[in-house]
Amino acid sequence: MSEKTDPAAAIASAVTVGADARLPLIDPRSTPGFDGGKAEGEELLARDAARLDGLQERLFASGFAGTTDAAVLLVIQGMDTAGKGGIVRHVVGAVDPQGVRIRAFKAPTPEEAAHDFLWRIERELPEPGMIGVFDRSHYEDVLAARVRGLAAPDEIERRYDAIVEAERAWAERGIRIVKVMLHISPEEQHARLSSRLDRPDKRWKFSPADIDDRLLWPSYQDAYQRVLARTAAEPWAVVPADRKWYARLAVQSLLLRALEGIAPVWPLPAYDVDEQRHRLAGAVEVGTAEGERA
Amino acid sequence: MSEKTDPAAAIASAVTVGADARLPLIDPRSTPGFDGGKAEGEELLARDAARLDGLQERLFASGFAGTTDAAVLLVIQGMDTAGKGGIVRHVVGAVDPQGVRIRAFKAPTPEEAAHDFLWRIERELPEPGMIGVFDRSHYEDVLAARVRGLAAPDEIERRYDAIVEAERAWAERGIRIVKVMLHISPEEQHARLSSRLDRPDKRWKFSPADIDDRLLWPSYQDAYQRVLARTAAEPWAVVPADRKWYARLAVQSLLLRALEGIAPVWPLPAYDVDEQRHRLAGAVEVGTAEGERA
Repeated sequence: MSEKTDPAAAIASAVTVGADARLPLIDPRSTPGFDGGKAEGEELLARDAARLDGLQERLFASGFAGTTDAAVLLVIQGMDTAGKGGIVRHVVGAVDPQGVRIRAFKAPTPEEAAHDFLWRIERELPEPGMIGVFDRSHYEDVLAARVRGLAAPDEIERRYDAIVEAERAWAERGIRIVKVMLHISPEEQHARLSSRLDRPDKRWKFSPADIDDRLLWPSYQDAYQRVLARTAAEPWAVVPADRKWYARLAVQSLLLRALEGIAPVWPLPAYDVDEQRHRLAGAVEVGTAEGERA
Repeated sequence: MSEKTDPAAAIASAVTVGADARLPLIDPRSTPGFDGGKAEGEELLARDAARLDGLQERLFASGFAGTTDAAVLLVIQGMDTAGKGGIVRHVVGAVDPQGVRIRAFKAPTPEEAAHDFLWRIERELPEPGMIGVFDRSHYEDVLAARVRGLAAPDEIERRYDAIVEAERAWAERGIRIVKVMLHISPEEQHARLSSRLDRPDKRWKFSPADIDDRLLWPSYQDAYQRVLARTAAEPWAVVPADRKWYARLAVQSLLLRALEGIAPVWPLPAYDVDEQRHRLAGAVEVGTAEGERA
């Protein structure tokens, strides 16, 4: 389908940015490529979930049959409360969990820290047929690492290039990389953090470090801006995320575009169907359990 | 809730068996503990999915906060076409995928085969707060291994005891093990295999080895019978699986019982809520990106 006839294609196209993207010019409350409201957005989300599901099943079947090299990798970045978990829950959660592998990257363990920053990432890349999801990723190593001074400036510089190189290699292996920055406003984050503090069922999601990071907001935006400029070879999507329904719709649209680019088909059987039908017809009766004969 | 007031508790209780269970006496078309039909069963499945979801989120939160040792491990066994994938899709798929880790065990790789049979299993046990799902498991090492003669009889004997010992250790670590044998009839399997051969979108799920195994049906039933007798320390559920709606409802009921046994609660915050509210109130304004000031 074209952008004219497929709302998802229009959304995916509208949120995809180039190396010259300027974060301050992207309104976190906007809904690029979509002129409906929340109700229409949720309707489209539900309708396209079925399309995503069908494509994912074909991809998984191809991986299972060994007839594809293709996989999808969804990389989700964003400030605290930007909605990473909700995306995993409501977008990724709509497809068969057997075909999905989710990995949340936290501060490196001592073993991980003893290796290059990409070591723990490359071990979690999706196998053919799978959708891999990174909740935070190697980008923390040029975001938090830069803002919090966890690595020297020249090491950060090296990492941008290492990421571009690695992502190119992953793409050559058949991995379609969907890189999403969930873009929220500081006002919206303030409201969401307040809500987490107020609700006993949400307090576990809050950490005092969230406020530490909030106080570094300008530095983080600057670090994201640099990431967009330096790692655009595999393109980024900046997804306005103040409206959760839109962010979910946009990420679903990006996944749809990735899967449609793969265009997975049902694998042809590696066996002769008629021969197996014949065998099965001869195996109507299968006998009695040994224990029963005794 | 008690079995009288909670249909799920009645179902979970009715499918749970002891070491003296006799497979030929369990009708694969029956619906133990539930006297409704398909429509009522699907209604209950949908209603209890919300309960399962709420419990799972509390468990996940506790794991995230480090306040629990508890986890759930769902072990799914059954002949080909018994519905393992459907359980994962429709029962496990109803909870937040971030809290679930699914592992499908296939024939061991050379590396896996070089270790004891439990080596690859123990590496995939769920962390605290998680629901682990094994689609096939260590039980293949006493099922297929026995029927197909992949291990010597005395090694198979040793494995029953090793499994009992290992599962006891897992339980002591806090893992609630839900062991499910999906029990189908050979007639139903015949119909499902035929359908897989007929439908181009299902042929990838069929393998000629499925018929090889079907021809060994009595030996497999005998092997399952021995498993039930020898590994009952952590109890099995034999779930009649000719009716897919019932099998899904029964497994959901077993998961509910396991989670209610854990009785997870929202973790209390490790920080002072009022202190953080105060900090947040002082962080309404967060400034402008460095790039903007320039």
